[in-house]
Amino acid sequence: MKFEEGLWLQWKNRYRHILKHPMYFHFSEQFRNSPLIRHRDIRDNRFQKSMKEFLYHAVQRKEIEDVPAEIFWSLAYGPFYTLVKFHLDDSSMTGKSFSLTDYKMKQAFALVMRALKR
Amino acid sequence: MKFEEGLWLQWKNRYRHILKHPMYFHFSEQFRNSPLIRHRDIRDNRFQKSMKEFLYHAVQRKEIEDVPAEIFWSLAYGPFYTLVKFHLDDSSMTGKSFSLTDYKMKQAFALVMRALKR
Repeated sequence: MKFEEGLWLQWKNRYRHILKHPMYFHFSEQFRNSPLIRHRDIRDNRFQKSMKEFLYHAVQRKEIEDVPAEIFWSLAYGPFYTLVKFHLDDSSMTGKSFSLTDYKMKQAFALVMRALKR
Repeated sequence: MKFEEGLWLQWKNRYRHILKHPMYFHFSEQFRNSPLIRHRDIRDNRFQKSMKEFLYHAVQRKEIEDVPAEIFWSLAYGPFYTLVKFHLDDSSMTGKSFSLTDYKMKQAFALVMRALKR
């Protein structure tokens, strides 16, 4: 699967999942900050492995820039989670009401692709 | 001030301020999610106004894309705060230890500029 198509699918799937299970989202946010995430049963699970491979192949095919995984992640998902949080809180950075539509998500995604594409 | 120069200064200043006062950072994170942020004494303060003007002028001068403020924010600061949180937690998305160096911050900033610049 092409990188752009794959990342967009990720955004859509993650968003649908979050809207369906917002409490699970809040839980994972907390869990990420807990020492348990470093437990060896949790690190390098299958999902993480397939994400790593997806990224590796996109870099190999020169579809995207070769940057450290954390920087890639901050660009690929930072804007996404920022908007998702605005939506869940119904409140943007200035406290203004905010609803994440499909159109707005696509606008943000197009900018993210500009950043990552080679 | 040119947009690129101004946003970089923002990143540097915010990062320095967060490292100096991490508790204040955690407080503002919580505060942003509190209904108090909608209090009329807090909305549209001077800082927010000058940020708005900075963004408005950059769009007028056609330095950056004209997108809704929330989308702009998610790109301009989403990756930054993602990396800052990794650094403060000393833990990235996979739980791996992470330290935000000046070099990594510049790498991320360059990608953000690619996304926002016209």
